[in-house]
Amino acid sequence: MVYMSESTRNLHASPAIVSREDREKLLGQSGSVLWFTGMSGSGKSTLARQVEAELIGCGRLAYVLDGDIVRRGLCSDLGFSEEDRSENIRRVSELAAILADVGIIVLSAFISPFRSDRAQARDRIGSARFIEIFVDAPLEVCESRDPKGLYRKARSGEIKSFTGIDSSFEPPEAAGLHLKTDRQSIAECVAEVLGALKNYSV
Amino acid sequence: MVYMSESTRNLHASPAIVSREDREKLLGQSGSVLWFTGMSGSGKSTLARQVEAELIGCGRLAYVLDGDIVRRGLCSDLGFSEEDRSENIRRVSELAAILADVGIIVLSAFISPFRSDRAQARDRIGSARFIEIFVDAPLEVCESRDPKGLYRKARSGEIKSFTGIDSSFEPPEAAGLHLKTDRQSIAECVAEVLGALKNYSV
Repeated sequence: MVYMSESTRNLHASPAIVSREDREKLLGQSGSVLWFTGMSGSGKSTLARQVEAELIGCGRLAYVLDGDIVRRGLCSDLGFSEEDRSENIRRVSELAAILADVGIIVLSAFISPFRSDRAQARDRIGSARFIEIFVDAPLEVCESRDPKGLYRKARSGEIKSFTGIDSSFEPPEAAGLHLKTDRQSIAECVAEVLGALKNYSV
Repeated sequence: MVYMSESTRNLHASPAIVSREDREKLLGQSGSVLWFTGMSGSGKSTLARQVEAELIGCGRLAYVLDGDIVRRGLCSDLGFSEEDRSENIRRVSELAAILADVGIIVLSAFISPFRSDRAQARDRIGSARFIEIFVDAPLEVCESRDPKGLYRKARSGEIKSFTGIDSSFEPPEAAGLHLKTDRQSIAECVAEVLGALKNYSV
């Protein structure tokens, strides 16, 4: 009979009995992060959810992370100052890294306007498993969509530091994919994302 | 051809195309959280990793959350004051809830000494998917194991607010499972956990 004390000592020498590879083999896929970045109204969440549905339909385990999920819970203590937005993206990166370690295809949809934050996310997750997807549309198009009424509030001064109005969006310099949602259909965008994922997957 | 702007509006009315049920069907299991609580050296991580290995061996997707995973990343900004420890457990609860929403069997192994923090975790995750497992051993047994040398440091005053020495552990009042690792073998404990999981699973 093996008692806890002995085995504990052994296990601290090699704590991971199950590896990421074991989980990926079980799932038949590689954990990865598709990082959708773009202004409010550019179509990040819409695309992420459509891609998720396609992947689940093909039997692959995918999961969307967006503001709705983290702002009410994990990041409920954070506001919208530049510092707090960076901390928000830092926590999202850590969360995405853990989900990818489980073996999940993570679809992360946050404005994430600052290059340094996105670079940090890439470093944390690892370049080989990280695809940056620039969801691009002109400001006037995003503002005309205004799905959550946020541009209206930003213009009236009701909300501050809003990306595109009084806070900058730093476009990616070398995104893995550059989608122009004012000119491409959803179906075209989804197909491009799935194609990119196929090329990146081991 | 459907352009983003129209569809965005629709999708904001019903944002979730894929449900938790879809993912659980894909995985053939229910997402749930086994919450191991107990003093340092009681055997939480050892048990969680053994249970993880058993579950993965049976083709079920399980994942261990412990201090090693979150303290270096998601919670790297937190110290060990009572406040910070509560915030640590709050974030772990949110993380566990998200992983369970993906459909994963989460094995959470944290001292989590305060009843109120564990109650908050249960509330966040939902009673039907939450099993509290008290990993119990007398202080002198935990201290004699001292796998990380922490009791020695706590006794010498090198670290403060250490559970069992100068900070209290509030034992669960109605744990789903009460394991006594000074008297039960690892195999016995693992079998009890797997049995409890079977009873709770829908």
